[in-house]
Amino acid sequence: MNAPTSPMHLLPQIHPRDVPRAMIDALKARFAERCSTALVVREQHGRDESSFDAPPPSAVVFAENTAEVAEVVSLAAQYKVPVIPFGVGSSLEGHLLAVQGGISIDLGRMNQVLAIHADDLTVTVQPGVTRKQLNEEIKSTGLFFPIDPGADATIGGMSATRASGTNAVRYGTMRENVLALEVVTASGEIIRTGTRAKKSSAGYDLTRLMVGSEGTLGVITEITLKLYPLPEAVSAAICSFPSIEAAVRTTIQVIQLGIPIARVELIDVNTVRMVNTYAKLGLREEPLLLMEFHGSPGGVKEQAELVQEIASEHGGNAFEWASTPEERTRLWTARHNSYFAAVQSRPGCKVISTDTCVPISRLADCLLDSVAEADASGIPYFLVGHVGDGNFHFGYLLDPTQPEERVTAEKLNHQLVARALSLGGTCTGEHGIGLHKMDFLVTETGAGAVEMMRTIKRALDPHNIMNPGKIFAI
Amino acid sequence: MNAPTSPMHLLPQIHPRDVPRAMIDALKARFAERCSTALVVREQHGRDESSFDAPPPSAVVFAENTAEVAEVVSLAAQYKVPVIPFGVGSSLEGHLLAVQGGISIDLGRMNQVLAIHADDLTVTVQPGVTRKQLNEEIKSTGLFFPIDPGADATIGGMSATRASGTNAVRYGTMRENVLALEVVTASGEIIRTGTRAKKSSAGYDLTRLMVGSEGTLGVITEITLKLYPLPEAVSAAICSFPSIEAAVRTTIQVIQLGIPIARVELIDVNTVRMVNTYAKLGLREEPLLLMEFHGSPGGVKEQAELVQEIASEHGGNAFEWASTPEERTRLWTARHNSYFAAVQSRPGCKVISTDTCVPISRLADCLLDSVAEADASGIPYFLVGHVGDGNFHFGYLLDPTQPEERVTAEKLNHQLVARALSLGGTCTGEHGIGLHKMDFLVTETGAGAVEMMRTIKRALDPHNIMNPGKIFAI
Repeated sequence: MNAPTSPMHLLPQIHPRDVPRAMIDALKARFAERCSTALVVREQHGRDESSFDAPPPSAVVFAENTAEVAEVVSLAAQYKVPVIPFGVGSSLEGHLLAVQGGISIDLGRMNQVLAIHADDLTVTVQPGVTRKQLNEEIKSTGLFFPIDPGADATIGGMSATRASGTNAVRYGTMRENVLALEVVTASGEIIRTGTRAKKSSAGYDLTRLMVGSEGTLGVITEITLKLYPLPEAVSAAICSFPSIEAAVRTTIQVIQLGIPIARVELIDVNTVRMVNTYAKLGLREEPLLLMEFHGSPGGVKEQAELVQEIASEHGGNAFEWASTPEERTRLWTARHNSYFAAVQSRPGCKVISTDTCVPISRLADCLLDSVAEADASGIPYFLVGHVGDGNFHFGYLLDPTQPEERVTAEKLNHQLVARALSLGGTCTGEHGIGLHKMDFLVTETGAGAVEMMRTIKRALDPHNIMNPGKIFAI
Repeated sequence: MNAPTSPMHLLPQIHPRDVPRAMIDALKARFAERCSTALVVREQHGRDESSFDAPPPSAVVFAENTAEVAEVVSLAAQYKVPVIPFGVGSSLEGHLLAVQGGISIDLGRMNQVLAIHADDLTVTVQPGVTRKQLNEEIKSTGLFFPIDPGADATIGGMSATRASGTNAVRYGTMRENVLALEVVTASGEIIRTGTRAKKSSAGYDLTRLMVGSEGTLGVITEITLKLYPLPEAVSAAICSFPSIEAAVRTTIQVIQLGIPIARVELIDVNTVRMVNTYAKLGLREEPLLLMEFHGSPGGVKEQAELVQEIASEHGGNAFEWASTPEERTRLWTARHNSYFAAVQSRPGCKVISTDTCVPISRLADCLLDSVAEADASGIPYFLVGHVGDGNFHFGYLLDPTQPEERVTAEKLNHQLVARALSLGGTCTGEHGIGLHKMDFLVTETGAGAVEMMRTIKRALDPHNIMNPGKIFAI
């Protein structure tokens, strides 16, 4: 394996195209101060939570409605200039980097909840609405939107990356929870996919083609989502285990028995220590599972008892229960702060995050060997997982002044992905392909399937202006 | 409205292409007696449960494995001849009719359950496996496959039409339950989509693009499905209501409260009478809901009590409970026999089945006005519905010697679809577009979205050989 010596070497897809002065002038004339070419604004829109760097976009347009997005895309189509939709910048895979230059469309001002249909358990939002904002705005309906990727990402961004996170084990991912979309296509046309009906057999499933397309097929400008009644009862618990294996075996059994657990998150002992330091939580320094149960009071009690029994068989102990919202928030602090706690544990570090997901019975096989490899490498890391779905993340904490650490981390990631694929899994459970997993995509799904994806991309975006260089290094 | 005087007039897409003698000879040479040109075989493969007629395909090939399917498609690509995948022929929308001529590929002999991964709650099957066969073969694992469209359809056909049926209210449709596919593309290449991982963000969602594509993008040759643990407790009930409205209002409230009911099927009084005549069930001749509850014993009891309470508020009475498999089978006989009972109630009739699906809060609005219209028309009909999903079917029972009845039925269907669309719904919840709903598709999703679908179709099937004339009248 030849060692890449800098992050730039990992980005063969960097070859910015020219953005004609005439286009910038046209955008400035149309959008005035809502089209910015200030370096600080462009730089802010040219990066995300990934560890990659690329030159920033040539301009940022702050769109306020779908028609404006369509105008920008039409202009981009005319000048054959890339457009990159931007939400809050929480992508982990370089989705927002202007690797082929172009214009960033900031959708943050399109942040209206457009229609709450509480009686139908649906809501329609603009793409810049964040998940926390959404839950705040629908609070009085007694409903909630369960998908929680950790970051307070926008619904547009979550749709574009087919996000999931905690809660997906019970409520599914964006794949299952987006009912309908409005999309600006590569020609600047506005189309609608899907309806508010819960199911449909009306032609090709364009909704799910767009969900997870990472901005490469169109700009998502409106999203209709499923909502769920707030559970009558919620109970959360932390349980410590003598080993990761014990925690994982407990999870596997819970899933195989069909217990409708709402969240089951693994936090390894490294991460527990980091979180204890960061947030002074005083958690027992052992691998732990964070669990949540939703249902009727009787149902929650039943689930909790079953899980406790299973956990005990695997040596799980020290169950700490939380039934009030305040207590639950405290427990979830451990999970929600894990990323920042880890980053702070090694000041100045860059994070490479893995994202494999395997069939539940193979979770222990996949995870334990990878932990052994990571431990042997000497690279500091954190490890958290949506283990109920077979999905987990190593975050390798890299010193950017030590390029050999990146080489080691990439090697660990390659080994992990190869292992996950050999076990029937995927290289990415929820972060997307972006810039970093293109080769893995080919290995995972085969050249034929990737060629089918590219054929669709070429047909729907003949000038390759929609977030080019992501998913495929065209 | 001009009256079509025969069903043929409803099929402008009929224009059979030539199948060159050389291709038939090549198929005969390769497949011997497994390539049939006998009229009776061709006719059997050139029709389905729809009310349409078209000339039969030129030949039927009985494929035994994926490589053989790929061979047939490659030959078809060479000669630019249509290919139509065939399962058991239970389509209701003319999917199997050779409206542009061509070759039928019978997948019925590809009926092996290939891999049961009970520990992962997944199974991989060939496309000719039927849903009943599947459940029989996995019985010993304690798992089941819930999707039940009524007919004992093949898993391949169910995938191709994005089928659902009873149970979808709790377990989702084929959209949610297909994890991965093997597909023979229009060029005869074999590709794989998806993995056995429960979730993935790896590129475009080709799995869901293929699910519901009605054979127009490729031939599905292998399907990996989610399975579910057989519920610890199952309880079923019939409840009669003073009116359809009362039954529907009960359903709406059950769904809005988030009660995880597994099945909630409406049967109108016409249909109850037909079923009583057909199967001597002695059911109370009132609209009824057939319900099923899955869960732990405590959970089932809790759900059932809640639903009984809601039903009582709406005048529901005469709950008849069934907890043993035999009693449940008796209750479900009413639902499963409704189609045949209806057909027998008017000997020699042809059925036009509607398939609208609306957001749950609009179900009463959509259904009640349509019942009034159907009653006023004088056309005999039956009415059943997966009402928990907002999906219901009128079956208009038409005397084929009275063409004006078809005109009336088409008019009723148009009114119903227009109403469903105006209420935020879809023209087809589960049967697909096929030959009969192309215009509705454009009205529902807009010309722009349909053009996007056609662009994908043209890109993936440039010679338009994959089940042409379905979804789009190309």
